Amino acid sequence: MTANAREENVSDKCFSIQELAELVGGEVHGDSLLEIRGFAPLESAGAGDISFLVKAGEADKLAACKGTAVIVPMAVEKAPMCCIRVKNPYLAAARIHNLILERPFVATGVHAMASVAESTRVPEQINMAAFVSIGERVSLGERITLEAGVVIGDDVEIGDDTVLRANVTIAEGCRIGSRVIIYPGCVIGSDGYGYATDERGFHTKRPQVGIVQIDDDVEIGANSCVDRAAYGVTHIKSGAKIDNLVQIAHNVVVGENSLLVSQVGIAGSCSLGRNVVLGGQVGLADHVNLGDGVMVAAQSGLHNDQKPGARIGGSPAIPMKQYVRAAIQYGKLPEMGRDLRKLKKTVAALQAEKEE
Amino acid sequence: MTANAREENVSDKCFSIQELAELVGGEVHGDSLLEIRGFAPLESAGAGDISFLVKAGEADKLAACKGTAVIVPMAVEKAPMCCIRVKNPYLAAARIHNLILERPFVATGVHAMASVAESTRVPEQINMAAFVSIGERVSLGERITLEAGVVIGDDVEIGDDTVLRANVTIAEGCRIGSRVIIYPGCVIGSDGYGYATDERGFHTKRPQVGIVQIDDDVEIGANSCVDRAAYGVTHIKSGAKIDNLVQIAHNVVVGENSLLVSQVGIAGSCSLGRNVVLGGQVGLADHVNLGDGVMVAAQSGLHNDQKPGARIGGSPAIPMKQYVRAAIQYGKLPEMGRDLRKLKKTVAALQAEKEE
Amino acid sequence: MTANAREENVSDKCFSIQELAELVGGEVHGDSLLEIRGFAPLESAGAGDISFLVKAGEADKLAACKGTAVIVPMAVEKAPMCCIRVKNPYLAAARIHNLILERPFVATGVHAMASVAESTRVPEQINMAAFVSIGERVSLGERITLEAGVVIGDDVEIGDDTVLRANVTIAEGCRIGSRVIIYPGCVIGSDGYGYATDERGFHTKRPQVGIVQIDDDVEIGANSCVDRAAYGVTHIKSGAKIDNLVQIAHNVVVGENSLLVSQVGIAGSCSLGRNVVLGGQVGLADHVNLGDGVMVAAQSGLHNDQKPGARIGGSPAIPMKQYVRAAIQYGKLPEMGRDLRKLKKTVAALQAEKEE
Repeated sequence: MTANAREENVSDKCFSIQELAELVGGEVHGDSLLEIRGFAPLESAGAGDISFLVKAGEADKLAACKGTAVIVPMAVEKAPMCCIRVKNPYLAAARIHNLILERPFVATGVHAMASVAESTRVPEQINMAAFVSIGERVSLGERITLEAGVVIGDDVEIGDDTVLRANVTIAEGCRIGSRVIIYPGCVIGSDGYGYATDERGFHTKRPQVGIVQIDDDVEIGANSCVDRAAYGVTHIKSGAKIDNLVQIAHNVVVGENSLLVSQVGIAGSCSLGRNVVLGGQVGLADHVNLGDGVMVAAQSGLHNDQKPGARIGGSPAIPMKQYVRAAIQYGKLPEMGRDLRKLKKTVAALQAEKEE
Repeated sequence: MTANAREENVSDKCFSIQELAELVGGEVHGDSLLEIRGFAPLESAGAGDISFLVKAGEADKLAACKGTAVIVPMAVEKAPMCCIRVKNPYLAAARIHNLILERPFVATGVHAMASVAESTRVPEQINMAAFVSIGERVSLGERITLEAGVVIGDDVEIGDDTVLRANVTIAEGCRIGSRVIIYPGCVIGSDGYGYATDERGFHTKRPQVGIVQIDDDVEIGANSCVDRAAYGVTHIKSGAKIDNLVQIAHNVVVGENSLLVSQVGIAGSCSLGRNVVLGGQVGLADHVNLGDGVMVAAQSGLHNDQKPGARIGGSPAIPMKQYVRAAIQYGKLPEMGRDLRKLKKTVAALQAEKEE
Repeated sequence: MTANAREENVSDKCFSIQELAELVGGEVHGDSLLEIRGFAPLESAGAGDISFLVKAGEADKLAACKGTAVIVPMAVEKAPMCCIRVKNPYLAAARIHNLILERPFVATGVHAMASVAESTRVPEQINMAAFVSIGERVSLGERITLEAGVVIGDDVEIGDDTVLRANVTIAEGCRIGSRVIIYPGCVIGSDGYGYATDERGFHTKRPQVGIVQIDDDVEIGANSCVDRAAYGVTHIKSGAKIDNLVQIAHNVVVGENSLLVSQVGIAGSCSLGRNVVLGGQVGLADHVNLGDGVMVAAQSGLHNDQKPGARIGGSPAIPMKQYVRAAIQYGKLPEMGRDLRKLKKTVAALQAEKEE
């Protein structure tokens, strides 16, 4: 696929509007038998393409679109072309686009310059590129893709349809689920950071003998790190999506469908509930527990547990509404200082007078 | 070159003082026919070396220097040895040092343990180390250096004289210009972080079908990440210099000659003008636009667009002068709190008295 | 070793309680001839295992433990099983656990798919995995482990018993001591970030011709970066322990036994004394000097030198006690603003009255 072709996004197959509407639970207005083969933004869509509009308020953009069909929000009742009305056009567009991009798995097998230890059985349905190194007793599911430079330690387990992109490292004993995507340079199962210090200040390494377990449908971004547990399991639960350059320390639990934005750092033994959202560069001190649905503003620092649904921000973090007001006031600190000094003088003068 | 030799920095060629002065637009005081072969700091320079002095106020250091010549700022009118007077000695020293370190490109060709896909043509003038993996239809310029462990995806384009250091990953379809240096472990073209979420909290991956384009003379530091665009292009423009462990999200544009210090994080669709400077660990929220020459203090967090030339700091960021004063006042907050409580009592007493 | 076996931690050898007590300088209560082969937490310990208790206040947990022996703090005078009383149970447990995990070095030699330059001599006692690339004139100590994908540049020196995990890069000329562990994806000796800028805003790279020197017993975490010096040496001194995704710039000195938690960023030419502790995501501006034993709270930003033993926090950082109080007050800023505005009005009214 050329760089330009990446934007064309045309399938080998045809999909009827009816099929697509059923996939996303939408209502068709127009000819539901029209055939769609491609997906494109409004500006570049052409014949055979489906496009999408997120905001009803921008419906006037539809006039110039040359696509065959368009996904629109429910508030848009008709369009110049065939349309699929849905509650969440963003989500519907993602699903249809993924369908159009879908390709059958074509196994290329094991590259002549890959290295697989003797006790590991390689299934036929695999793509293993050059310079992939696989240790002893590794369990490999079906239709796995291992790009060049991937290193897998002994006793690792990997589920079906998982993709490890270039130069990923999975250390010994870790378990990776199905349909997981791990992006280039990511390190899973490095030792946790744990030392015991003697009276002279020398540090003795505490053995890190646990593993990392990554459940189904997780994605972990480029150059992120998930450390193995000291004992037991560092656990990334199903559907969690982790961005690039994120640090997850030993014994952390990340709940289902949580979102961790780039450069987040989570210290040892923290526990995150379901659908937690951590903004970019957020830091969690060790042993912090976040309930389901907690949302934390970018660059915040947390030391305390948070109840389900809490919205917090700041370093150290406080409730979000309070943080927003405090942050505004912060810029006024110089002025507040001046006012306060002036007031002190005035009040001192008033009091002195009274005492005369 | 041994570790010690790295500090010697001696060329195989000789350069006259005259030649060097012309390179940097400087004025020679002394014998312009003297020959220079090496570059060294004042303390270790010897015969045949040129050295440099940055601050005129430290001109007394020249007496002890044993080098043949020295680069000095215009404010220094003479030196115990031959000197080249320039406006910017720091810059002149860098240029002359680079000239002395310059070596002709010697092609080692393709290592027997490299892997190149069939449809990719490899030019004769190349250094391709062991365990380099190159995909289909890759376009390679002249005099490229690919160190061990480099992985290049399908349809990538790379310009002349570019260097990809060890274990770099360039994902499919990305375009890298000429004279680019990408440092070890760097990941170019990983998928952007984009999901659409359904009413139950499950995330569907939004296809990331754009590319990364890196223009000429860019440098990107070790283990940094530049994500491919959702659609279109994530664009690093010519001359930008990016430090280690930096995160650049999908659809970001980094302007010409911008400087991004280590651990900066830039969220999706931000746009930076020319010569923007972001200090270490700065974070930008998505869709922030920074004008030409904006400078941001280390660890700041930005949510708002900034006009050309703006100087800002803090998290959330405010104008730099205001930030500096607010930061000083921040340390006085406990004292301010006490003063305020005391004042409230005093004023209440004064008022009570009045009302009696 | 399977994922489960990692938690069993059983040695091939037997150790008497007496031996173990001597190793950790502890007092035995019970049968000092009992034999120990395994190490396990209180909950999972069984016959032949030694376990440990950190807090005397939790001594009631010992009743349910099925292990043969337990390490306890001095305040615990007896236990339901044989016990070793020590001052620091955390440290004693780490030492005994390490002893039990110790395995003799078994050399696997050089993998057929590794690449070693001609002028480098490989000792017999080595584990060199597939896809390891080693440059010219590299000096290798005894019992070194090089995992798959490791890249070592020309003229590197590596001491005895050092472990470089998967996909680590050591650039040319760097020196690594003995018993060092470098975790996956780490980059040692990438170029420092140094440019000289001309009047049009173009940046010229300043040559980075120094090296990185890493002394004995250092550990550096996954995907961390240590840049080579511009001149001279970036120096990580013995016993320092560095976590994942840490950035160490050119010419930095990190003192003996210092601890740098994940995502710390240290700018050029900083110098840290012995046993400095930097919390997660801390940033240091360039040329900052920290005395021995300085401790910095997570997410702090430092611009100024600190005396030995200083405790500091905040961005910009202030003394720790002051920071803690200021951070509390920060949340009260909106309230302070309101109080101040009210006071100004009241005082203005009082004064107006007086002047009447």
